[in-house]
Amino acid sequence: MVAGDVEIRDVGPRDGLQVESPVPVQARVDLVRALVAAGLRHVEVAAFVSPKAVPAMAGASEVLESLGNLDGVVLSALVPNARGARDAVAAGAQELTATLSASAQYAQRNVRMSVAESLAALEQVVAIGADRGVPTDAVVSCSFGSPYEGEIAAGDVAGVVERCREVGADRVTLADTTGMATPRGIGEVLDAVGTDVGLHLHETRGTGLVCAYEGLRRGVRRFDCSVGGLGGSPFAEGAAGNLATEGLVNLLDDLGVDTGIDLTALVAVAGDLEDLVGHELPSPVARSGPRVAAGSPAG
Amino acid sequence: MVAGDVEIRDVGPRDGLQVESPVPVQARVDLVRALVAAGLRHVEVAAFVSPKAVPAMAGASEVLESLGNLDGVVLSALVPNARGARDAVAAGAQELTATLSASAQYAQRNVRMSVAESLAALEQVVAIGADRGVPTDAVVSCSFGSPYEGEIAAGDVAGVVERCREVGADRVTLADTTGMATPRGIGEVLDAVGTDVGLHLHETRGTGLVCAYEGLRRGVRRFDCSVGGLGGSPFAEGAAGNLATEGLVNLLDDLGVDTGIDLTALVAVAGDLEDLVGHELPSPVARSGPRVAAGSPAG
Repeated sequence: MVAGDVEIRDVGPRDGLQVESPVPVQARVDLVRALVAAGLRHVEVAAFVSPKAVPAMAGASEVLESLGNLDGVVLSALVPNARGARDAVAAGAQELTATLSASAQYAQRNVRMSVAESLAALEQVVAIGADRGVPTDAVVSCSFGSPYEGEIAAGDVAGVVERCREVGADRVTLADTTGMATPRGIGEVLDAVGTDVGLHLHETRGTGLVCAYEGLRRGVRRFDCSVGGLGGSPFAEGAAGNLATEGLVNLLDDLGVDTGIDLTALVAVAGDLEDLVGHELPSPVARSGPRVAAGSPAG
Repeated sequence: MVAGDVEIRDVGPRDGLQVESPVPVQARVDLVRALVAAGLRHVEVAAFVSPKAVPAMAGASEVLESLGNLDGVVLSALVPNARGARDAVAAGAQELTATLSASAQYAQRNVRMSVAESLAALEQVVAIGADRGVPTDAVVSCSFGSPYEGEIAAGDVAGVVERCREVGADRVTLADTTGMATPRGIGEVLDAVGTDVGLHLHETRGTGLVCAYEGLRRGVRRFDCSVGGLGGSPFAEGAAGNLATEGLVNLLDDLGVDTGIDLTALVAVAGDLEDLVGHELPSPVARSGPRVAAGSPAG
């Protein structure tokens, strides 16, 4: 069913840790190294945002500089604007991620920018990255619904994606910011946008994995996940956030898709991460282990 | 994509509550009534097992007798043997569920019976039910893997299903007892068994909903779920158990499949259930609410 490679970008060190109490730069560097040792080849490691607004992301340059170049690994950094892009590139980011929203109201309320203003910022980011050969991934939030407007028409999402490409974004990722995606919605948006996109899914309503599966079935080959399911919903213990990397790898392993990721090693990273953040993580596979353990009769 | 009706059997009052500290008969009756008020038309309400072994299921006859006949609703009872079947039928059960295992080792270790002995017990149950016009659903545990043997060959599952039908089971349900099902496994077993089966799925590894979706895509129209995701894994708070009824209804609503179940009402039942059992339930939809709230712009 699933042909070709599947690329997983672990956003745990950024999208996950940003909602946690701050942990030291060295612990964040160690987490990224552990993910790479488990086989991840693409990790979002930092956000160049105001440390006052997001204390957990302070030290973004130090994280990237400490990691340096890891052979065969792409280290991404979230940048909200030109200044962040310059700092990220200077610190050695190998990919820039820049968010804008398919929901005008979400954009206005969360970053106080219109979609047009976000696109102008994206264009600046793209130019700064391109100047140094660093690609930009435009992450379109609320692609599968908005907490303010409700449904977002697939055609409107396609319009935003088109404009991202017009201003030079090298890649586009569709994000389900508040966990409103469903297999039906995934299908409608992919019909309008095509499958050359990444999917960034959340488990807010437990639909992350089924939506990833629907995306896979339809040909999507890039997914954002977070080790341990870290992130997303800081408001309630156990409330699921990002699609857990272990969950997607468990599914892909079973489908015979080689991700190069060692699930047992990844589960161990999630276990250490629980100690680091000081609470349980919502990833069911991290908790229950691979379905058939290595070395078991069917392993 | 999904044609025809989908039937949901809520097993929360039985499969869910059996792993909890005992709650009074009246509270269990009230739970069933609340589920019916929310639109459920099929509920597993009791287990005729030893109250010494499973104290939470004591008073099975009282539960059924107190509920009586609910118009248009099927009340099921789990029965392990002929004695249980007689008691259940006498108390007014409208369906008997009897489990046996696709895993010989699981059967031996958990009920200390061989598969052949379980089939003999099933045959007795079927006969007792048939005598009073009460159908029996044979629930085949470990249909998608066993914690002891690992993978169970689809042909072996098909063999057990065939024998269930030979001894007269009116319906067969395939249960993923320890959360080992995957879309691949669902496909392989359904290819061998056909789609005239129920699926009883668990979220132990977060695969319940994606497996239900794969079953739906392939034509399965009967699902066991549990309100709030109650049940399954008593060992860890937040460890997901049964596929949550809210999660499946949320998916089906979005696919345009009318289940007759009011999701908002069902979420309220799950909330009350948390108070009853004294801890949080793992259902993401129960926690986060429907994706588009009634009355919202897109509702």
